[in-house]
Amino acid sequence: MTPQPDTDGALARRILISVDAMGGDNGAEAVIAGMAKSAEKNPDIGYILHGPRAELEPLVARTPGLSDRIHAWHDVSEVVTMEDKPSHVVRHGSGTSMWSAIDSVRDGEAKAAVSCGNTGALMAISTIRLRRLPGVNRPAIAILWPSRNPQGFNVMLDVGADVRADARDLLQFALMGASYARNGMNLARPRIGLLNVGTEEHKGRPELKEAHTLIARYAETGRFDFVGFVEGSDLPGATADVIVTDGFTGNVAIKTGEGTATLISDLLREGFQYSFLSRIAALLALPSLNRLKKRIDPRRVNGGVFLGLNGTVVKSHGRADATGVSAAIKLAFQLAQSGFSEKLAARVASVDELAQDGAELPEKAAGTHNEGQE
Amino acid sequence: MTPQPDTDGALARRILISVDAMGGDNGAEAVIAGMAKSAEKNPDIGYILHGPRAELEPLVARTPGLSDRIHAWHDVSEVVTMEDKPSHVVRHGSGTSMWSAIDSVRDGEAKAAVSCGNTGALMAISTIRLRRLPGVNRPAIAILWPSRNPQGFNVMLDVGADVRADARDLLQFALMGASYARNGMNLARPRIGLLNVGTEEHKGRPELKEAHTLIARYAETGRFDFVGFVEGSDLPGATADVIVTDGFTGNVAIKTGEGTATLISDLLREGFQYSFLSRIAALLALPSLNRLKKRIDPRRVNGGVFLGLNGTVVKSHGRADATGVSAAIKLAFQLAQSGFSEKLAARVASVDELAQDGAELPEKAAGTHNEGQE
Repeated sequence: MTPQPDTDGALARRILISVDAMGGDNGAEAVIAGMAKSAEKNPDIGYILHGPRAELEPLVARTPGLSDRIHAWHDVSEVVTMEDKPSHVVRHGSGTSMWSAIDSVRDGEAKAAVSCGNTGALMAISTIRLRRLPGVNRPAIAILWPSRNPQGFNVMLDVGADVRADARDLLQFALMGASYARNGMNLARPRIGLLNVGTEEHKGRPELKEAHTLIARYAETGRFDFVGFVEGSDLPGATADVIVTDGFTGNVAIKTGEGTATLISDLLREGFQYSFLSRIAALLALPSLNRLKKRIDPRRVNGGVFLGLNGTVVKSHGRADATGVSAAIKLAFQLAQSGFSEKLAARVASVDELAQDGAELPEKAAGTHNEGQE
Repeated sequence: MTPQPDTDGALARRILISVDAMGGDNGAEAVIAGMAKSAEKNPDIGYILHGPRAELEPLVARTPGLSDRIHAWHDVSEVVTMEDKPSHVVRHGSGTSMWSAIDSVRDGEAKAAVSCGNTGALMAISTIRLRRLPGVNRPAIAILWPSRNPQGFNVMLDVGADVRADARDLLQFALMGASYARNGMNLARPRIGLLNVGTEEHKGRPELKEAHTLIARYAETGRFDFVGFVEGSDLPGATADVIVTDGFTGNVAIKTGEGTATLISDLLREGFQYSFLSRIAALLALPSLNRLKKRIDPRRVNGGVFLGLNGTVVKSHGRADATGVSAAIKLAFQLAQSGFSEKLAARVASVDELAQDGAELPEKAAGTHNEGQE
């Protein structure tokens, strides 16, 4: 808990990323290696590091070029485990590296935070320490998914911040997702799709029909195109750039897609080990397979971004290796550099004002949402 | 509308499948070709054919070996299109081939029905004509999904019969899915998993926690093992044989998985066309790729089975070709031969009696389900 800021003036233009070194499945080693990888590629990244200094210092010392990029150490000994319940961590977790990493963003010491730890705990700590943006009822986690779109990926949210979302929440997800696509993927006018079981307007749950009306109404204000209902097949498709859904459906969808992709890749590997000829084929096919692997490698787009809070938090996959951690750090850096957090806050506020004026918000939706108007 | 039963005594042991020739994306040609394929492989299959006879007869006539397998023709001219709303079809669809195909099962003329048409309409007609089993509140659609299990597939339900399901519905899905796995995959004691966003018992929506308690309680009666909560990644995994979820989540999950698998296969194909060397690699890799393709080819397991009705209905994929249609017919035949419909009815009835006695059903769940006790 003893910050030691590096006050070197020449490094002032660096953007500082707060990194939780602990709590990932591959331990601090993977995190430190990922930090080094990003540092080597990008001279403008600096770090605030959180975790037990006695354990981390030797790791950093034997990683060339990293120690002078660490602008501050927060020597905290406790660690949030994957088994810890979010409610427990919120009450008793103030001495953990995760809590400390979020507080660096809260205190303005760092521009964004990265953690490989327990998703539920990270969302709970982030919500309680950074607080929700005015007008946001439920924060959301947005991820990138390999798609047929020119940019190669689609944004999907929520993928698990909360198991439910009503029409107004889904509208906010649309606004936040559009803002993320603009700043994270340079899409001036992202196309938003609302996930349903069919594209016809009469299909689906009641809250989805209500959300359909709401999102269509805010397309101009939110500077996005609304393509209406989309289906699961559009997540890897080219119909929309941002897919909006509740955190239950989104979480199941991405895990099913991920699991299916892994099954195919494992069966492909088995297939190539089938016979002598197929092993030769595998050798020749290697460049093609590697191109495919690179195109859809989840490590390249590792990072769920927490949207709807006063500050940027990137959740790296728990199983991330150095490449994965580095990708999450890169994403945090990009978002910090673009001033994403401030832009998103302004966007949500402008829509919230409209809603509070009652200018555009349909009565029914406004009526059910007083608790969100804090 | 003029059935012409083939009364040849030697053919009496044939199991008759009612086939809707119309409404699929590839027209009657694909359906007739699929029927011929199944007929050739299996001497015990006979057909009741539904559709405009003037259009179908020439197709059948030029397909060797098929005409003497058609035990009856129902000459109906109207067709349910993919765009028709289920509510419209229920009111005005009695002259369609789909309606006629279901009525063959209702009237005991055929043991099971197969259609490539509009899923919503088929479920609506099936529900209204066959009626739900006593004690079943919501019918469900079950599909097979490629998995790491020894049998190569998992059952998932509901994938889109209804967009919602409460705890008691999910219990019925578990019972019906277990029965399907026993009869369709020869698993004496299937493992049932309840789809959620995490495996810990505190996670997920309230109705899922309630369903968890209910399903665990009925495992012995229903002769299955309950593995508790599973995640999207377990759908292609080896943790459970049957994955239970509501029709909204299930529909999104399978379409995301399907879309992701298709994206990978397209990118793989592009990858192999990249250069001269990669084209040679593709030639050599062909056997391996074909083995993989066969292993996960959705046409081989084509067919969503409607569960919870008085009769067996198999929904073939709308885009099914001859191979796909033949797979759906094979599935319908297997289920008819095993007496699945009767076994399922007995199983559901035995649990419903327990529930009505109040012997095991928790009070809360029983209270919310009076409408299901018809």
